[in-house]
Amino acid sequence: MSHGKHFTLYTNELKVAVVLEAFGLTYETVTLDFSKQEQKSPQYTRYNPNGRIPTLIDHKNGDFVVWESNAILVYLADNYDTDHKFSVVEPDEKITQLQWLFFQASVKGKHPYYGQGGWFRRSHPEKVPSALERYQKEALRILSMLESVLSKQEWLVRNKCTIADLSFVAWNIAGFALLIHDYKEFNLEKDFPAVHRWHTAMLTMEPVREAHAKYHAIIARAADGEYKCPSRRLA
Amino acid sequence: MSHGKHFTLYTNELKVAVVLEAFGLTYETVTLDFSKQEQKSPQYTRYNPNGRIPTLIDHKNGDFVVWESNAILVYLADNYDTDHKFSVVEPDEKITQLQWLFFQASVKGKHPYYGQGGWFRRSHPEKVPSALERYQKEALRILSMLESVLSKQEWLVRNKCTIADLSFVAWNIAGFALLIHDYKEFNLEKDFPAVHRWHTAMLTMEPVREAHAKYHAIIARAADGEYKCPSRRLA
Repeated sequence: MSHGKHFTLYTNELKVAVVLEAFGLTYETVTLDFSKQEQKSPQYTRYNPNGRIPTLIDHKNGDFVVWESNAILVYLADNYDTDHKFSVVEPDEKITQLQWLFFQASVKGKHPYYGQGGWFRRSHPEKVPSALERYQKEALRILSMLESVLSKQEWLVRNKCTIADLSFVAWNIAGFALLIHDYKEFNLEKDFPAVHRWHTAMLTMEPVREAHAKYHAIIARAADGEYKCPSRRLA
Repeated sequence: MSHGKHFTLYTNELKVAVVLEAFGLTYETVTLDFSKQEQKSPQYTRYNPNGRIPTLIDHKNGDFVVWESNAILVYLADNYDTDHKFSVVEPDEKITQLQWLFFQASVKGKHPYYGQGGWFRRSHPEKVPSALERYQKEALRILSMLESVLSKQEWLVRNKCTIADLSFVAWNIAGFALLIHDYKEFNLEKDFPAVHRWHTAMLTMEPVREAHAKYHAIIARAADGEYKCPSRRLA
């Protein structure tokens, strides 16, 4: 790794980048070409035996490797959020923060785009509208649950934006857009005003905007054909 | 809560009980009647807004409430595994332990019994064999991944059994039995010898046997009609 940055981040998505930006850390992003199954190659699975993204390597900590996105967020908070800008300090509050991170991880698997719902939308060998609808309804259930919490408090943990909130940014962006575009008369602002307020507050934060801009630049280059599916050689 | 035990555990499954037993802690189990939607009742959602099991209440810590099973395991290890019998101490190792707990959480959602696979087996309004098969294949992929790791090391983290390993016990028990009973010629011991060795080692541990025996007693009483679906009044 000769890029000279603090971290190498293997990812094709936004989630971990948001938190790296939030903590002001430098990182080199390596995107994998799924069409070539790069995520299953020995060069990648030596870091992550699960053959999935993301994976983070910390070059200032003996090339320590961690995968599972929310474990990465906790690692970054524990080690690099020394003034607790986006994390909590007190042990019980850290558990509540962790509880929401586990909840977010469970939500991701049911995501209408990149989770099970996405599978039935795009990849499953037969069309099963009832299966897709199941995941859309599940996404609405999750929004109702978040609304019930966020209508009583500004953020998920304590009275501050933490990695637990930030872990939802990428899910929100893809989830809302994809629910809106074809699920009945879904209207986030009208149906889930507290979730809308929470999500909008995060979107306007500098680190989220920065990560989003970098992510769009990668996507745009991919669309321009610079690389088919955003890809770069594995180290 | 007048039962006098250290914890109240809302659950209809084995997972958290295994770790409570491992740490030698006392707990009162409250099972919920899903047929009556008790998990969605205000008496329960005041503790867990997600309306799912499990939820733990720690009566010796100001009735502190935590939900999401793997967040519960971390809470118990942080607070009550003071001699680190089933958890690691060093910060980077704790992150690796957490990484495997997030992996386990993602696996659970694809479980052939109580996750998405279970939905398509038992509850989905139409029969979609291709959807069920998808989750069976995914379970085999997860076993292959675990085999690749456990054929090189005895346990998931460091050289000891931790909460990361124990978090798999319940998934393994239900998953193996349900895969074996109808997926081609699946044979755990032959196909995944390292996983079989790992799982068997955990099954023979005293706390796992204890939790399992208590769990079977509940199930047996339910089968005897003492309560239809194991259920007890919410506090």
